[in-house]
Amino acid sequence: MQASLPPIVVVAPDSFKGSLSAPEICAAIARGLRRVWPEAEIRACPMADGGEGTLDAVLTRGGERRTREVTGAGGRKRTAAYGVVDDGQGVTAIVEAAEIVGITDRDGVAVDVAARSTTGMGQMIRALLDAGVRRFMIGVGGSSTNDGGAGMLAALGLAIVDDAGRAVAPTPQGLASAAHADASGLDRRLGESAITIMSDVNNPLCGERGATAVFGPQKGVRPDDIAALDATLSRYAVLAERAVGSHVAERPGAGAAGGLGFALQLVGASFRSGAEVVADLIGLDAALDGATWAFSGEGRSDRQTLLRKAPFVVAERARAVGVPITLLSGAVDTAALPELSKVFSGCFALPSGPMSLEDCIAHADALLADRAEQIARAWNAARG
Amino acid sequence: MQASLPPIVVVAPDSFKGSLSAPEICAAIARGLRRVWPEAEIRACPMADGGEGTLDAVLTRGGERRTREVTGAGGRKRTAAYGVVDDGQGVTAIVEAAEIVGITDRDGVAVDVAARSTTGMGQMIRALLDAGVRRFMIGVGGSSTNDGGAGMLAALGLAIVDDAGRAVAPTPQGLASAAHADASGLDRRLGESAITIMSDVNNPLCGERGATAVFGPQKGVRPDDIAALDATLSRYAVLAERAVGSHVAERPGAGAAGGLGFALQLVGASFRSGAEVVADLIGLDAALDGATWAFSGEGRSDRQTLLRKAPFVVAERARAVGVPITLLSGAVDTAALPELSKVFSGCFALPSGPMSLEDCIAHADALLADRAEQIARAWNAARG
Repeated sequence: MQASLPPIVVVAPDSFKGSLSAPEICAAIARGLRRVWPEAEIRACPMADGGEGTLDAVLTRGGERRTREVTGAGGRKRTAAYGVVDDGQGVTAIVEAAEIVGITDRDGVAVDVAARSTTGMGQMIRALLDAGVRRFMIGVGGSSTNDGGAGMLAALGLAIVDDAGRAVAPTPQGLASAAHADASGLDRRLGESAITIMSDVNNPLCGERGATAVFGPQKGVRPDDIAALDATLSRYAVLAERAVGSHVAERPGAGAAGGLGFALQLVGASFRSGAEVVADLIGLDAALDGATWAFSGEGRSDRQTLLRKAPFVVAERARAVGVPITLLSGAVDTAALPELSKVFSGCFALPSGPMSLEDCIAHADALLADRAEQIARAWNAARG
Repeated sequence: MQASLPPIVVVAPDSFKGSLSAPEICAAIARGLRRVWPEAEIRACPMADGGEGTLDAVLTRGGERRTREVTGAGGRKRTAAYGVVDDGQGVTAIVEAAEIVGITDRDGVAVDVAARSTTGMGQMIRALLDAGVRRFMIGVGGSSTNDGGAGMLAALGLAIVDDAGRAVAPTPQGLASAAHADASGLDRRLGESAITIMSDVNNPLCGERGATAVFGPQKGVRPDDIAALDATLSRYAVLAERAVGSHVAERPGAGAAGGLGFALQLVGASFRSGAEVVADLIGLDAALDGATWAFSGEGRSDRQTLLRKAPFVVAERARAVGVPITLLSGAVDTAALPELSKVFSGCFALPSGPMSLEDCIAHADALLADRAEQIARAWNAARG
């Protein structure tokens, strides 16, 4: 690559949670880079990790955004967005649990967690099966539910009944009286489907590292109720597994999204890192091909970043094809710099001086453009 | 320059006032750069602008630090440091007004500004003349006095007397009754001397843009007293100029250091940008010769930086020999970035994320090393 050719820069950040979306970050960085290189080819590849923002990221590179009315976690109807991508080899649906049973849904969290259910997830999948979809990418981050995915399974045809043979509500409350499960009505089209869960959570369904103990409290499970709810999910899991004829409760990720990871695995889903799936869906490898330089980033980079968060995944793929990658995040944990420095060619943060978090968030767009511009100026000087 | 050779990096920052000295900043940046390039040749060139820190900066590259007892601004004796540099063509003395009549001298500022005097400056110069020194570099930043340099002139032999022919105190108070000045006793060796004032102040002695109106308030001149004090200095200037036979009160810089700039010009001193003089004294041009890259910086960079502050002077000299220069300051004013970007190849600030000024100052050393390291990593990647 000659210095005189305009550079090709891949910009592949995760969102800055609570500040800018990944597409907005791409636009800000591109604006800064163009001040230095008006002729640069900038390939915007907004990233996500399978949680909130995944749909937005994937749809920037193609596909169609659709909506459907489903039952929210608290029982009220809500309109949920999903995506449909046709890569020429067939249709893939992108579903975000956060869109259906999200922790940011006020109607959902107004109802006690013991009465919340993932019914809407089952409704969405069933409707997509009806529409002929057989490939699913399901992001499970950001859910408000702790029902072991019982709501989803019930909506897909699993019967869960009490001692008297009456159907129980597929909620933590209802599952307490579950005595038997029957999978004979389970939608058979699931068996013909490829379902991928986008998540980095590897907790099992129950126990000390299980969904209820680890993630329950942030969803409103009271400390005193953890043991009982965990026991309820454990009994429900035995019933469901016996009915389906598969054992998945201890698998890594069964504890994702309040046990939605268990239920999805029970119907054949496999896990993949959310960032890896998104990277594939947005064609990151093709974008990196022939690139001069790449950027990634996130709200705050620290040692967690190295656990295959979006910037790490982008870095691995960039390095695989010999493209240097620079980190530009809202903040960079100083303690993690020695390790981050092995992965990134330069780690930079937003502030232009002493600045509060509120000011960083308020001015993130302008600060990002400025930072990208200044890094590009240093880069330019180095190329001589 | 081949990428495989270890780089030669010139590090030439001003001090971060209230945080780190210029030599400390050089050490921190060098530490960060060595993490990337253990073999790099790092040429530490601590800079200053003629104010506080000038002596430290100059003496890092050679010369001798000495001390002498002089009268402080408030009348008490104090020990003042000065420097002596022998460049082979003779001895040059480096004198800092801040060391003698500094605004940070508690004994000095405990006395009302109307009673403060630059007598100590005259004592220092006379003693150096006695020692054979005929070349002086005088930094006039950071003074607490507003006496028009009368104290210095009196100590060097100018007689200032009242109506009755009695010597008046060379203070704003005393000068109010000055009626006549006589230069017949003025030290004749001043005429054989080359005196350079290191300063970027270009205010005249009196008037709206004069020393008292512009700098008086920060030295404790009460708003109501400005007009009277300005008039006193104006009358004193006429007397002194008549005695010496030279007219300098309206010259740019006569208003520097409460009129010390006037008094020094009256005895033949010329002005030069402090940063330019320091750059010469530390041999900056020789250090830049053959360098790969240069760094400069200061506590806060803004539009003022472009008015020939130290980083700007370093940048001009670096660019003159084709060495790219990057700015690394405590903070960079976002509004000044478009202009700073024309001068520097990348402008960077200390913080690694949202951070208070106090935290930036407390962790400046580690933050500087980290920032320099990360910029070097990006630089390295760019060189490919």
